[in-house]
Amino acid sequence: MLEELKQRVFEANLKLVEYQLVVLTWGNVSAIDREKGLVVIKPSGVPYSTMTADDMVVMDLDGNKVEGRLNPSSDTPTHLELYRQFPSLGGIVHTHSSWACSWAQAGRDVPAYGTTHADFANGDVPCTRGLTAEEVYGEYELNTGKVIVEELARRGVSPDACPAVLVHRHGPFTWGKDEEKAVENALILEEVCKMAYRTESVAALSSGSDIGIEDYLLDKHYQRKHGKNAYYGQK
Amino acid sequence: MLEELKQRVFEANLKLVEYQLVVLTWGNVSAIDREKGLVVIKPSGVPYSTMTADDMVVMDLDGNKVEGRLNPSSDTPTHLELYRQFPSLGGIVHTHSSWACSWAQAGRDVPAYGTTHADFANGDVPCTRGLTAEEVYGEYELNTGKVIVEELARRGVSPDACPAVLVHRHGPFTWGKDEEKAVENALILEEVCKMAYRTESVAALSSGSDIGIEDYLLDKHYQRKHGKNAYYGQK
Amino acid sequence: MLEELKQRVFEANLKLVEYQLVVLTWGNVSAIDREKGLVVIKPSGVPYSTMTADDMVVMDLDGNKVEGRLNPSSDTPTHLELYRQFPSLGGIVHTHSSWACSWAQAGRDVPAYGTTHADFANGDVPCTRGLTAEEVYGEYELNTGKVIVEELARRGVSPDACPAVLVHRHGPFTWGKDEEKAVENALILEEVCKMAYRTESVAALSSGSDIGIEDYLLDKHYQRKHGKNAYYGQK
Amino acid sequence: MLEELKQRVFEANLKLVEYQLVVLTWGNVSAIDREKGLVVIKPSGVPYSTMTADDMVVMDLDGNKVEGRLNPSSDTPTHLELYRQFPSLGGIVHTHSSWACSWAQAGRDVPAYGTTHADFANGDVPCTRGLTAEEVYGEYELNTGKVIVEELARRGVSPDACPAVLVHRHGPFTWGKDEEKAVENALILEEVCKMAYRTESVAALSSGSDIGIEDYLLDKHYQRKHGKNAYYGQK
Repeated sequence: MLEELKQRVFEANLKLVEYQLVVLTWGNVSAIDREKGLVVIKPSGVPYSTMTADDMVVMDLDGNKVEGRLNPSSDTPTHLELYRQFPSLGGIVHTHSSWACSWAQAGRDVPAYGTTHADFANGDVPCTRGLTAEEVYGEYELNTGKVIVEELARRGVSPDACPAVLVHRHGPFTWGKDEEKAVENALILEEVCKMAYRTESVAALSSGSDIGIEDYLLDKHYQRKHGKNAYYGQK
Repeated sequence: MLEELKQRVFEANLKLVEYQLVVLTWGNVSAIDREKGLVVIKPSGVPYSTMTADDMVVMDLDGNKVEGRLNPSSDTPTHLELYRQFPSLGGIVHTHSSWACSWAQAGRDVPAYGTTHADFANGDVPCTRGLTAEEVYGEYELNTGKVIVEELARRGVSPDACPAVLVHRHGPFTWGKDEEKAVENALILEEVCKMAYRTESVAALSSGSDIGIEDYLLDKHYQRKHGKNAYYGQK
Repeated sequence: MLEELKQRVFEANLKLVEYQLVVLTWGNVSAIDREKGLVVIKPSGVPYSTMTADDMVVMDLDGNKVEGRLNPSSDTPTHLELYRQFPSLGGIVHTHSSWACSWAQAGRDVPAYGTTHADFANGDVPCTRGLTAEEVYGEYELNTGKVIVEELARRGVSPDACPAVLVHRHGPFTWGKDEEKAVENALILEEVCKMAYRTESVAALSSGSDIGIEDYLLDKHYQRKHGKNAYYGQK
Repeated sequence: MLEELKQRVFEANLKLVEYQLVVLTWGNVSAIDREKGLVVIKPSGVPYSTMTADDMVVMDLDGNKVEGRLNPSSDTPTHLELYRQFPSLGGIVHTHSSWACSWAQAGRDVPAYGTTHADFANGDVPCTRGLTAEEVYGEYELNTGKVIVEELARRGVSPDACPAVLVHRHGPFTWGKDEEKAVENALILEEVCKMAYRTESVAALSSGSDIGIEDYLLDKHYQRKHGKNAYYGQK
């Protein structure tokens, strides 16, 4: 069943590898067939190199496995909660990509620093509160989804205006109208987190008194390559 | 029309991918036929993997589409303003490359710190002022071009002496005598921005009291590999 | 002898290259046949590109070469000490991967900052004390193994709860139930060290007064791509 | 003439690309035939992708071109000075690799922080003094070589104990018994500079009060993957 969606979800999972957002068996992509109310998701802990479209697992929105030989991703309850609460979502991605995880581990929202961010989200990317011990020792993965929903609600942020969230001490979840867009947003979030880190660093750094090329060396190098007596390269 | 130029612009766009200056559909390269007064530019939002030379769009300098099935890059008015104001330009590139964007987002000029920079530009790479709300809500992309031209004029910098600029909170534009040179300059700018960041960091860091290999460990490792009784490797 | 294990150790060594954990001839993987009490390890200083499974060296646990034309890795006595003291180990990896070495050179434990770390180790990754001059000028590689064992014992950390250690001023050793798992742990440690560095940096940085995209520019870029009058991309 | 040496120098130049030490036409490798007193070096400003072994240029030690259609690297006089003053050198490499250039631009020696460095050089990697205006406007490339020789002599460092130097505001020169070893040393220097930067950063950072995974979350994630009731992955 859902062979076409399985194929798409399978290919979207492979994109995580291509975009260098995951190593080993990390990360997972899902997509939903809204008419049927069924979700297709990556199996848990299977290497990308040997995975097939047929390995994808079909779940209903109540968390029952409808089809599939393998266990679904351990993060499945988080995906299902987001699909239940956010009806506009067609695909969801979770990764442990390095830059997004670093902001999540530091517990910081990703500030909107430039147009790359603005092309993606209409404001800061939120980092959730940490889960309590009760939430962690209870239905952990379901509670992760609930905390995401709570955080967006508390801030009055629509999932349509911000396709990503950071889970405290954990990592990013991104989404979109389908699984392909969700993966694109995972890649963009990683770029945005990297740039935000570097932007804060560049702003904090400065041109100290000990650095800066001497005028004559600047001039010499520029002229030897671009001046009228340039001697770099061939005629 | 302009089939050869379309092919060249197409290939120059693919170089952005090869040089890892863009992801997804980001970035754009254009080139101008000065005799005909026509500009060839990448279409808006088309994936590099499926794009063809035939997808390139031909514009006149007044912003009219002369040929092409697709919408030109949304940044086209910026390119056109630069071609109008800077007659020596043959090709222009815009990217959201990470290091250059980080300096742009921090609103800082890139200081000339060494010969890699000097081989490229005859002084600091300027970052423009930010656009006003009026400029942004007006003809935004055209005004982006005007702010670039204004910034260079205000500083007395010729576009021939500095083939790059950072647009505040946005990212880099680079240029050259043709589209190939403009792409090279986009790559060099990225290298220069990365090095400038690291140069400021290295200058700010220092060898603290807690680090530094012990003399006997330095000696041991050097001698076991290079000394007369070396035992690393094969005979 | 042990042809299958040689093949597996050979392939595990090549994984170090694939995972970008080594350059040139750096790094080494070993595995043990516990029934026979024999260890298979990479030869010393042989390039990965020309190495064959047949080049692997067979050692007994007392450090005698049992089979092989080539010298074993100079780090062999460290591997053997770990196999002797930690009976659950099936494979061991040593690399000079950049992020792990940087923590080792700084002499710092890697703090557990998030779930990526928690999926891997049940607490901080320890950095050993430095070796004394006597230990270095004595049986250096054996003493490296002894210091690792001592460090874990001193902290009451089981090698089963933490599959990695950093040797002071040197670099990481990782292990697992077999050579494949040990290599995976070397990769995960590198990811964890990179994230820990970035987590501390993100926590130390902040959104200064000079950065942050202006509201009107945020709105403009978001709307031109996602708003109802969006003009980015194709229809 | 020297066809075999040309082939080797050509291949060594391509290694710079493979090792990601250069972009575009940057960097150059040379090697010397000590018996004939002739040096083979990369031509100036030729792309690596179209370069052939036959493009290599043969120079004598006085700087006369002995064979070759193309201009030799503009850095040739630096190479020749090093060959004249350091008789044990068989190959020399110059790059603008990012990490090494960043230390050079900051004007700092690279401190020996660990065994990766110790396997390579028997002490800090020196950064030269800056060239004076007279030296730059005079025989610049020759003077670059003289400043390198002067710096090592002033410190009493033998080129055999340290196969690399940083030229102030410029970048690295490395050498070895042949061109292959010189290229390896260029790669190792880059790794060492990267690690030294990160080592100083890790030592300067710290585990602030706001970060560190909560014990219950650490435990939960470790147990769900490795505990006796683990539910991550497949049976």
